[in-house]
Amino acid sequence: MLPSLRLGPVRASRIVPLATRRRFSSLDLFPDEPKKTSVHTDAVPGPKSKQISSRIDHIQDPRTHVMVVDYGASNGNFIVDADSNTLLDVFAQISSIALGYNPPPLLDLARSDDFVRAAINRPALGSFPPVKWAEWLEGGMLTVKPKGLQHLVTTLCGSSANETAFKAACMAYRARERGPGANFTKEEMESCMENKAPGSPNLSILSFQYGFHGRLFGSLSATRSKAIHKVDVPAFDWPAAPFPNIKYPLEENEAHNKAEEIRCLKAYEKILIDSKSTKPVAAVIIEPILSEGGDKHASPAFFRALRLIAKEHGVFFIVDEVQTGVGATGTFWAHEKWGLKEGEQPDFVTFSKKMQAAGVFHNLETRPNAPYRNYNTWMGDPMRAIQAKKMLEVIKSHNLVEHTRKTGDMLYSRLEDLFSGHPNVKALRGKNNGTFIAWDFSTPAERDRFLTRMRANGVQMGGCGDMSVRLRPTLTFGPSHAEILLEAIEKSLTEL
Amino acid sequence: MLPSLRLGPVRASRIVPLATRRRFSSLDLFPDEPKKTSVHTDAVPGPKSKQISSRIDHIQDPRTHVMVVDYGASNGNFIVDADSNTLLDVFAQISSIALGYNPPPLLDLARSDDFVRAAINRPALGSFPPVKWAEWLEGGMLTVKPKGLQHLVTTLCGSSANETAFKAACMAYRARERGPGANFTKEEMESCMENKAPGSPNLSILSFQYGFHGRLFGSLSATRSKAIHKVDVPAFDWPAAPFPNIKYPLEENEAHNKAEEIRCLKAYEKILIDSKSTKPVAAVIIEPILSEGGDKHASPAFFRALRLIAKEHGVFFIVDEVQTGVGATGTFWAHEKWGLKEGEQPDFVTFSKKMQAAGVFHNLETRPNAPYRNYNTWMGDPMRAIQAKKMLEVIKSHNLVEHTRKTGDMLYSRLEDLFSGHPNVKALRGKNNGTFIAWDFSTPAERDRFLTRMRANGVQMGGCGDMSVRLRPTLTFGPSHAEILLEAIEKSLTEL
Repeated sequence: MLPSLRLGPVRASRIVPLATRRRFSSLDLFPDEPKKTSVHTDAVPGPKSKQISSRIDHIQDPRTHVMVVDYGASNGNFIVDADSNTLLDVFAQISSIALGYNPPPLLDLARSDDFVRAAINRPALGSFPPVKWAEWLEGGMLTVKPKGLQHLVTTLCGSSANETAFKAACMAYRARERGPGANFTKEEMESCMENKAPGSPNLSILSFQYGFHGRLFGSLSATRSKAIHKVDVPAFDWPAAPFPNIKYPLEENEAHNKAEEIRCLKAYEKILIDSKSTKPVAAVIIEPILSEGGDKHASPAFFRALRLIAKEHGVFFIVDEVQTGVGATGTFWAHEKWGLKEGEQPDFVTFSKKMQAAGVFHNLETRPNAPYRNYNTWMGDPMRAIQAKKMLEVIKSHNLVEHTRKTGDMLYSRLEDLFSGHPNVKALRGKNNGTFIAWDFSTPAERDRFLTRMRANGVQMGGCGDMSVRLRPTLTFGPSHAEILLEAIEKSLTEL
Repeated sequence: MLPSLRLGPVRASRIVPLATRRRFSSLDLFPDEPKKTSVHTDAVPGPKSKQISSRIDHIQDPRTHVMVVDYGASNGNFIVDADSNTLLDVFAQISSIALGYNPPPLLDLARSDDFVRAAINRPALGSFPPVKWAEWLEGGMLTVKPKGLQHLVTTLCGSSANETAFKAACMAYRARERGPGANFTKEEMESCMENKAPGSPNLSILSFQYGFHGRLFGSLSATRSKAIHKVDVPAFDWPAAPFPNIKYPLEENEAHNKAEEIRCLKAYEKILIDSKSTKPVAAVIIEPILSEGGDKHASPAFFRALRLIAKEHGVFFIVDEVQTGVGATGTFWAHEKWGLKEGEQPDFVTFSKKMQAAGVFHNLETRPNAPYRNYNTWMGDPMRAIQAKKMLEVIKSHNLVEHTRKTGDMLYSRLEDLFSGHPNVKALRGKNNGTFIAWDFSTPAERDRFLTRMRANGVQMGGCGDMSVRLRPTLTFGPSHAEILLEAIEKSLTEL
């Protein structure tokens, strides 16, 4: 049954003028950060980038190369390519760089004994953890554990974090069906070796249209971003629920958006109910903002309703914060904005990308009943755990989440002005979501032209969905960078 | 149709006395390596290990912990635990440490600018590769590319390497069915978004009983090691072929083993033929020695027949060298021993573990027809590629593959003597496979008791299958380590 909802757009908090608080400047972290962009080749990628890409072609597919990068020369929010062009980077390796390039505290860390020994002596963590393992987790990733979740399985990437959650959810779902203390039956132990039920159960993971959860066989079955990601790969027959097609600006579309969210909630609940007799849904997975699929937003009330409906039907709830996590939306986790009360928290929160380490926060209920069930050789990487710990220390000491919230508010408001009445730009979105901002063009080709012009004008920016662009800068991106970005956007729009 | 076979056991090459060649000593690499083991707690894990594990219990599942390790104090082939016990390590983090702990050349590398910048500025490799990327691959992993394979997709772990190969094989299989230049149909593009055929095709990956290929949803569907690895996790309805149950000693069981291999080949070919009308097999995956499943061997002729039969039926052939690769079997790749002729080489060879970097060697035929089809955020890790390059340099300059072949020959022959007529030990195997040696006990409990006694006697050793133990030492393991190992085995056997 649908819980009672107060659906509606997010309300804007008043923008606090930057000068009233201690102002973070990226100079604090990057004293040598460039002051401006500089592009001296006719296009980006330039001739040297292209030459290196063509050399790589004999070994690897270079068709996805955007540019070849000089990581030694890159600094802070500026990326330097093989042709010595300096670009402002608001894509940050597909949203995977938290602080910027070559932050001195991380360079120091990388030369420390702990880091070097962790890098060179990579353990099988599940069986031979290092003496400081608990300390690295407690002082690092555990300091940002989502409310209500106490446990952490570490993994190597976002796809495997999601699949680890899928497995834990299926195991816990079956354990609940069996009842406390019940053992696997002989039939289960034998049939799973044949990939048959009941040992390999007919359970499914429900995801949403436009959702992206990874590219491995389980995570790809839950991914619904684009056909080119999925075609020709065998998939589990798992269901997808519709995700609201929200109209912008929010203020002018309240009634439509509310109706659209209710339509999707009903369809979602119907799948949970209908599947019970055929292929029960063990878990639901959703991103707080459907990023790769086109930065699709919905209201906090919609997400809270999804969570409560899952709970009502005994289905585990996984929040995929691989792209939204680690501060870029102006809160450390994006789902903090949903206003979940105690007892309503997600069962799993997955992360990767900007954390550099990857993993799944969860609770004891979803720890498997026997060892070696959700196990693998590396089970994450201590080196990345140490790196995450240091980054989190810097994020806290420099108030970078708060900084990003304020920078995002300012940037959003400036973009609103800039785009006002502009014929090419549609559906500006991400208000009150830090720098996690996106907008649409009229066609995929126009969007691609815009991105090419932006690079020529000194800014590396990313697309998503069919005709959207997304801002995914680092957490040290500030007002001075925003000015460079805004100028490049204005110029590139005139060149379309 | 079965190709003509000359099935039979591997022939032993004459053991070359070590003194006739330049003798590698681990002193060359590890001047401070301990000379002997030392265990001063009543058992391993000792009280400090247990205390740290119990602290970790509040965050992560510690039931799989063997011991907590002081990686700073570990050196060469000796692992030091939290209680300052020093053990000879012949398990090497589940076969994942190639040279030993803290090799000085790798410690130096880890402090180098290239390494530090690669560690801190992890790129989205598929889109923003570093300027030296081609150089790192060409001077590193490409120097050991398996015969006949020119291309390399890098990944983060063995499971994802295997699933990358599965995806590439399915894409190439469908491309061949479509014919040259044919595009995806509208129906395919739409149906794949619903996880339905024809876009999500009814293709399968064939694996073998006892095979282990990883723990993610696709790789786990191909894994057939143990029920506890699989139960409660949804699986693809993919087939498994029988793998020969070889009897030992080989010399006394030639007829049985030959008949057993022919039985399995026939069953395998029948699956390939029968599945064509229902769920065609796009690729076969097999380990040269089925390691996790119990160190199951078969003759080179058997493996060559598998490969030729796959070719005959238009099925891609994936060799999973995640555990067998990088020299431990006395050749760099274990499948080099199969005697494949030109044109018979595998379509894919996957690796991870001792290489530290992971990936898939393949050919241009299996590069997808469009970009972004077998793509992800990180696509491997340059830091691990640099590490692999340095390790490969050390392996070559110290002739460590040859060293391991000779050490293994000596060790095997000594074990044969030691076990001769021993009531508890069965099925010694791994002759002519370097240090990749295993044997069985009579029951799982007896095997586990042996491993516990070995730890108390100063040697960390691993099990596999139901009642087997496996030697998986580093490539610097030499005659002096072998003496320590043999003494501990002899003592532990008397204590069973």
